[in-house]
Formats: sequence, structure tokens, C-alpha cells
Amino acid sequence: MNRQELINQIQEKRSFLCIGLDADIKRIPSHLLDNEDPIFEFNKQIIDATKDLCVAYKPNIAFYESMGVSGWNSLHKTLDYIPKDIFVIADAKRGDIGNTSRMYARAFFENMNFDAVTVTPYMGEDSVTPFLDFQYKWVIILALTSNKGGLDFQKTKSNEGKQLFEQVLEISKNWGTDKNIMYVVGATRAEQLSAIREIIPNHFLLVPGVGAQGGSLEAVAEYGMNEDCGLLVNSSRGIIYACSDLDFAKKAREEAKKLQYRMDILLSEKGI
Amino acid sequence: MNRQELINQIQEKRSFLCIGLDADIKRIPSHLLDNEDPIFEFNKQIIDATKDLCVAYKPNIAFYESMGVSGWNSLHKTLDYIPKDIFVIADAKRGDIGNTSRMYARAFFENMNFDAVTVTPYMGEDSVTPFLDFQYKWVIILALTSNKGGLDFQKTKSNEGKQLFEQVLEISKNWGTDKNIMYVVGATRAEQLSAIREIIPNHFLLVPGVGAQGGSLEAVAEYGMNEDCGLLVNSSRGIIYACSDLDFAKKAREEAKKLQYRMDILLSEKGI
Repeated sequence: MNRQELINQIQEKRSFLCIGLDADIKRIPSHLLDNEDPIFEFNKQIIDATKDLCVAYKPNIAFYESMGVSGWNSLHKTLDYIPKDIFVIADAKRGDIGNTSRMYARAFFENMNFDAVTVTPYMGEDSVTPFLDFQYKWVIILALTSNKGGLDFQKTKSNEGKQLFEQVLEISKNWGTDKNIMYVVGATRAEQLSAIREIIPNHFLLVPGVGAQGGSLEAVAEYGMNEDCGLLVNSSRGIIYACSDLDFAKKAREEAKKLQYRMDILLSEKGI
Repeated sequence: MNRQELINQIQEKRSFLCIGLDADIKRIPSHLLDNEDPIFEFNKQIIDATKDLCVAYKPNIAFYESMGVSGWNSLHKTLDYIPKDIFVIADAKRGDIGNTSRMYARAFFENMNFDAVTVTPYMGEDSVTPFLDFQYKWVIILALTSNKGGLDFQKTKSNEGKQLFEQVLEISKNWGTDKNIMYVVGATRAEQLSAIREIIPNHFLLVPGVGAQGGSLEAVAEYGMNEDCGLLVNSSRGIIYACSDLDFAKKAREEAKKLQYRMDILLSEKGI
């Protein structure tokens, strides 16, 4: 999906919501366990209930990989089921030497037809650029993550006074463009978004950490939204595990609707 | 496998060789393509030909993942085939927020029974520690990698004068012990090994980059070997793709033997 198509989706749906499909066999409603493929059935019902409210889905690859071959089968079925006009992100946090990153890119972009893959920047340029060789595909580079350990190294100041995540932004933005690179910035670090927008005014940001991790949607929009919106705000557990009863999908929809309602207001305030 | 068992292997086999199983359907000998599972058949013949010369195998997960479900099946069969007294590393370079890293740990340690997984340190402590909750399992943290992009951020100096990879070593060594943490240090950075041994004298190092990437085995041993050896030196392409003829496994053995011969001398020189 190209940048303009994504922006169009946001304008039409009045939403910049990304829903994380972190399907965990230990957390999905127990009545689904009788299905032939409980994980796919769970995702299917979540997708049916939310596809008009979100612009992106983000399967967390670890959850599928941890189930082995059956997990990969559930993932493939889920990908086939997601409507083609919705942006799909492989939250995989991959990154390796060039010839290996090329294999990962092939796995996610060719075999599975994801629109985007999250990658880690630690190994530098040749670990990321193989993902940029695919038209209308995206890499989403970790910049400032929402977890506690995000502070261990990402905010280390260099001898030039720059924090590591700022260096990552400044250097890596030259590896591609705002049409094929996005960045992960955790909602729990919303106070950093103004400084980040100084470095990358136009790039889309994937923002996890709203909801279960405590980040504020309004703060993210205030400091991070640009004139194209420029945000994909993710919620996973707060939506998909809102309830474990028979009507879990209805409850998931209600939680997604609450976020979409607030997003509509924030978009309107920005004149989008 | 615990630390002492690994050291015993090194002493008995007179080798600290790790062979990278980067099985690529586009590079394996063409006569194997008629097999039901060419990737497994390739790995099987490589393992048969080299298992007495190496102490570890390191499947590069990207190569299997890029083939989808059939790739995972080939990987599972390969893991079942590797003799139980050989250390097996998932070269996966994973790392995510705590609950997600736990899923990856479960995938590699429980479902696939690897001894170790490579992880990237960018997301900090809670992205790594879930891998440390498994007895006799190891995390191998990226410190200084052998690729060109390794210089983009890993050698950035902090305002305290420390390079990023040095900070990674100093901070992360406290997350576990030399009995469950190793570090990746590329052979192309052998000149850094003395400084690294100042910070982590006892930890094992996984050293890629000898062979195809141009690193020197003797330099690695000179600056990086400790009294337990403390090294696993990896070669992938230089061994497994030494030849693509019918006798590829014999040629792979010859290349492995050349390295093992030099390793025997280096171990003896160190009194091991």
C-alpha cells in the first residue's frame, strides 16, 4: 500500500487505529478452543467486528511463531482474511546482516504479502535496506520504544549531545523516504514527540503503548500528528482481550469504537 | 547444555567451531532438489560430514522462515537430527517487550529445544531477561557485529566516552551470568577483543565473520580466547557452500577440518 492510499483510508474511516493481533491460545475465550483453528477463529471474529474502525492490523509474529507450524498456518489464514484495503504490519522486529535481512524481507513481503515489517536498527544500514527494495512496502524502524528497557540504551547521550534514538532517526531517514520508512515511538514517550517531529516532520509513526501500557492518545496526537495525520496508534490487549465471554468480539468493537471516536475528533481538530 | 558440558566438548573435540546452517534453496546443490525435503537432506548430509569436527550448529532462522511452513518443517527435522551433545543456536536476533520476548523464548527453547538464541539489545533489559528464565539455556546478545552497518551505531561514543557496544556489555552482563549469557562479536572486529575481554573476561563469545566475511581465526584467538576457550567461531558459507557438486558434503568436511586443525593448535598453545 502506498502512502497516499494509507492517508485516504485514514480520512475516510476517520481513524488512525491499528489493532494488534496478539492472539494467545492461553488468553482467547475458552469457548473458541473447540474450533479446528481457535487462533484463526478468534482473529476472524475480531476482524469482522472491527474492520470498519481501524486502518491497520498488526499481527505480533512471536505469538504465532511460539505455536510452531500450526501458528504459521493460523497467521496465513488470518492474512488471507484481512480485507485488502487495510494496511498489515508484521510486528517482527527483525534485522540481520544484508543477505539474511533479504531472506526476512522475502518471507514477510513475498510469501506473506505484509505491507510493512518492524525492524531493529542496532545492526545499521545494511540490516535495514534490503527491506526497502520492495515497491509499496514499508519498514518500520524502532526508534523509542514504550517498554521500561527502552531507557537502557535508546536515551544514551552521545558525545555530541544526541540521544541514541535521535541518531537512529537522523541517520536512518536517509536510507529511504517517508514513502517507505516509518518509525516506532511508544505512546509512553509522548513528551519526546515534538523533538522527534523536528527530525522527521513527515514520516508516519507507529505508536504502541496506548491502553494497557498507559500512554495517552490525546498527548500522542498533540505532539505527534502532522498534516497528513502521520500516526498509526496501536492497541492490542485493550481491544482484543476486552472480554473473554461469548460476546468478546462485540466488546472488542466497543473498545475500538471508543478509540475511533476520539480519533475522529482529533483528526477534525487538525482539519483532516 | 550447561557451560561445563560445552567446555568439555571443546576439549574433547579439539574444536570451537560452530557451523552455520544457512540452507538456501537457491544455493544448495541442484541434485538435491529432487528430494522430498531438499533443505533437510542438505543439512543432514552436512551434519553427517561435520558432526565430529564442530561443537555447535547455528541454523539461521531467516532462511527457514523465508520458505514458510515447509521451511519450519525442514528446521524441525534438522533439529531432531543434530546429535544431542552438540550445542544448537537459533540465529534469530529476536527481542521485543517482555510478554512478547517470552513468546519467542517459548518458541525456541520449548517448542524447538534450541540451547541458545541470538537477541538484539536495542529494547533493553525486559526484552532480554525473559530468555534467561530457562535452565541451561542461553541468550547470545549482539554486541559488535561483523557487517558494515555494525559501525553505524554500535561504535557511537557516549558523553562518558564509552562506545555503545561497551555500554551494552557493561549493563547487560548484570542481567544474567557467564552461565547463561554469551555475546556476538564479529571476527572482522578482532582488534576490539582485548577491550571486550576487559569488560567480560569469562563470557563465551559467538564470533561470526571468519571466512566469507574476511575475519582472521588466529587474531580472534589471540585477543579473544580465555582459559576456558570462551569462543565459538562460526563459519557458514565457507563450509556449507564450499562446493555444489555431488560430493559437496565431503568438501564441506574438508573445509571444516581445516578450521578444526587450526583450532586444535590454538587450543594447545593456550594449554587447553
